[in-house]
Amino acid sequence: MNQGPAQLERLKAFSDAVFAIAITLLVIEVHVPRLDTLEDAAYLAALAHLVPSFMGFMLSFLTIGALWVAHHRLFGVLDGFEPRLMWPNMLLLMVVAFMPFATALMSSSPLARVPEVFYSATLLAAGLLQLLLFRIALGPGRTRAEVVPEEINALRWRALTLPTAAAVALLAAPHMPGNNNFFLLSIPLLARAYAAIGRRRALRRMAAQTAG
Amino acid sequence: MNQGPAQLERLKAFSDAVFAIAITLLVIEVHVPRLDTLEDAAYLAALAHLVPSFMGFMLSFLTIGALWVAHHRLFGVLDGFEPRLMWPNMLLLMVVAFMPFATALMSSSPLARVPEVFYSATLLAAGLLQLLLFRIALGPGRTRAEVVPEEINALRWRALTLPTAAAVALLAAPHMPGNNNFFLLSIPLLARAYAAIGRRRALRRMAAQTAG
Amino acid sequence: MNQGPAQLERLKAFSDAVFAIAITLLVIEVHVPRLDTLEDAAYLAALAHLVPSFMGFMLSFLTIGALWVAHHRLFGVLDGFEPRLMWPNMLLLMVVAFMPFATALMSSSPLARVPEVFYSATLLAAGLLQLLLFRIALGPGRTRAEVVPEEINALRWRALTLPTAAAVALLAAPHMPGNNNFFLLSIPLLARAYAAIGRRRALRRMAAQTAG
Amino acid sequence: MNQGPAQLERLKAFSDAVFAIAITLLVIEVHVPRLDTLEDAAYLAALAHLVPSFMGFMLSFLTIGALWVAHHRLFGVLDGFEPRLMWPNMLLLMVVAFMPFATALMSSSPLARVPEVFYSATLLAAGLLQLLLFRIALGPGRTRAEVVPEEINALRWRALTLPTAAAVALLAAPHMPGNNNFFLLSIPLLARAYAAIGRRRALRRMAAQTAG
Repeated sequence: MNQGPAQLERLKAFSDAVFAIAITLLVIEVHVPRLDTLEDAAYLAALAHLVPSFMGFMLSFLTIGALWVAHHRLFGVLDGFEPRLMWPNMLLLMVVAFMPFATALMSSSPLARVPEVFYSATLLAAGLLQLLLFRIALGPGRTRAEVVPEEINALRWRALTLPTAAAVALLAAPHMPGNNNFFLLSIPLLARAYAAIGRRRALRRMAAQTAG
Repeated sequence: MNQGPAQLERLKAFSDAVFAIAITLLVIEVHVPRLDTLEDAAYLAALAHLVPSFMGFMLSFLTIGALWVAHHRLFGVLDGFEPRLMWPNMLLLMVVAFMPFATALMSSSPLARVPEVFYSATLLAAGLLQLLLFRIALGPGRTRAEVVPEEINALRWRALTLPTAAAVALLAAPHMPGNNNFFLLSIPLLARAYAAIGRRRALRRMAAQTAG
Repeated sequence: MNQGPAQLERLKAFSDAVFAIAITLLVIEVHVPRLDTLEDAAYLAALAHLVPSFMGFMLSFLTIGALWVAHHRLFGVLDGFEPRLMWPNMLLLMVVAFMPFATALMSSSPLARVPEVFYSATLLAAGLLQLLLFRIALGPGRTRAEVVPEEINALRWRALTLPTAAAVALLAAPHMPGNNNFFLLSIPLLARAYAAIGRRRALRRMAAQTAG
Repeated sequence: MNQGPAQLERLKAFSDAVFAIAITLLVIEVHVPRLDTLEDAAYLAALAHLVPSFMGFMLSFLTIGALWVAHHRLFGVLDGFEPRLMWPNMLLLMVVAFMPFATALMSSSPLARVPEVFYSATLLAAGLLQLLLFRIALGPGRTRAEVVPEEINALRWRALTLPTAAAVALLAAPHMPGNNNFFLLSIPLLARAYAAIGRRRALRRMAAQTAG
């Protein structure tokens, strides 16, 4: 049932707000050191001590940012509001809203295994819910007429990016806690690779159909 | 007095923002454990200790989410801005904004009676204000022309869901603190049942009028 | 220079977000009691101790809510974006964003004079900035064609509500700290009275011009 | 690739939300004094102690406000969504979201050198990312047809304001910690001066082309 553009707009607006709040609340978990001195060395030591928090902030900011960019891309091709999107989207937002906790836990002891596993598992949950959302949203007849099939297939494949990267980071977490997050830096490349595969496959299929 | 779509849009946007912030602030009340160790067991114990907080986060996220979905559904059928909606909506938002406190209180001691009663009572207040908002909003001549009467009646009945579930949870709270929240899991089913009743009743009434 | 509706929309959206965040952050300053007991009496005592915080939350929620309703009403009659509104609006938002601090200070010791004076003074600053915003925004030729002059004058007078109520609360604060806030409950009545004066005066002036 | 106005709207909405949240979260870092007395002197002393926090709040509010005003101005002249804007914008938002931390660090010890350097460096990072965003966004053929070339050039030059002011404040920070922030007060004047230069240069160039 297509309830028209106003309802879709509002779903986007609500999602945008949750993404924006979660991404901005990350900073609250970076605790401000309160020192009773003016000495440079004391402040530099306190800031050095916060480096894992800064890195956790940046990592989660960019990951939530990537989730939002993907959400933006997905809803940019949809034709109208689809009530079936409502709850998968809400569950995705729930995991996004939970990210500040997982980030702070990880940053508080970046070399411990359990916090790293917990963080990667949270990202994996976000990735799988995003994948589910993409699968439901990109069903037949739900995209705007001018969006070509290869772009839709590129989007579908692209949604595998976060699940893949988070799964690798999760598997690596017990063995190299802290460093396992470097796998997340592959996200931009992975996204491009998956999109290229999806696009090529759609084109090949269409070529086969035309030829057949 | 119908002041047109722009004013309605802005009321929706403001409401969306309050819902989104309240739902995302829930995580702030889940306090991050700070441990001076790398041992798995210590972290697992700390996380196990937080299970009530995680469950409170999820329960309130889904409940506020359901309130937002209902709000979205209601405003999707309205025809224009109605100033009389302003303050009932503001009071509903006030209770929604208060939810992070009620959730944190409940999660801090999930087997105590007073926090559970307090939490259920907060939900009941939200449910009753939502019911009031629906009653005012769905008055005659306020819905868009293409919305059929049985859908309006379904919405009206559906607004009984949260008051019912919260009232049962409130009555059960002193007797089975903590477990009383399981009644809230009936919300999706209850919503469907109430909507079906409302729809059937409207159809029966219309059939009677046609026959009469 | 009228830069068109898109720029006005965005100014509204940004303002809505700041209002919504400030109003929802109020709850963060209501600190959750953490008790190591299941006894009802201990929780009831802790909640009783929080009554000033609950009242501060409600008072500030409703006051910020009223400021937002007035903002919504004002921008509902404007014709387009006016860059001169930008900074008075930003200053108003600054005071609104500061409200959680003033509220928490007042709630932490509701019978002390300085926090009450501080709170009332913050409200007075908000009221005066709102008045300035209304004066600039409602200048000649800036409202939509269908808005009648008596409504514009009603809005102009209505903007005196918060400055009046806050000034009275401020003057009373040193003499009856805590109770001075009851004067703020006159806001709904005062708003109606001022609007009626503004409307009547505009009609009388127009009648005089027609007769003259 | 121009993906149309809906995608641009959503990028603005998300950015607005991050700006609004960061600007409103500033107040959370102003810690409410909790005193067990009703005496005026104790409260006045506690408030006096918070003056650096109040000043930090105002300074950062106005600076983030100025960043938002510039963002609003920039996106007001753009013609459509340009995917290349996405990540520079996200990085700018990341620094904006980080501002509450930098502000709180600076306010906690306003005469220490390291926090002041850290704060100015954060502002400089925001300024440089904003400059990058303006350069990409104002490329040829990306602005609406009715926007005259001298206005585009004024915007381009105007984007030098924050980098200039922040660089001066950064250089001065080690020598006059605390007072170095006064250079930021030059932002309104500097913005006007740069805009005037940009406008004049564009007009001169066009005059030369017409004459040539």
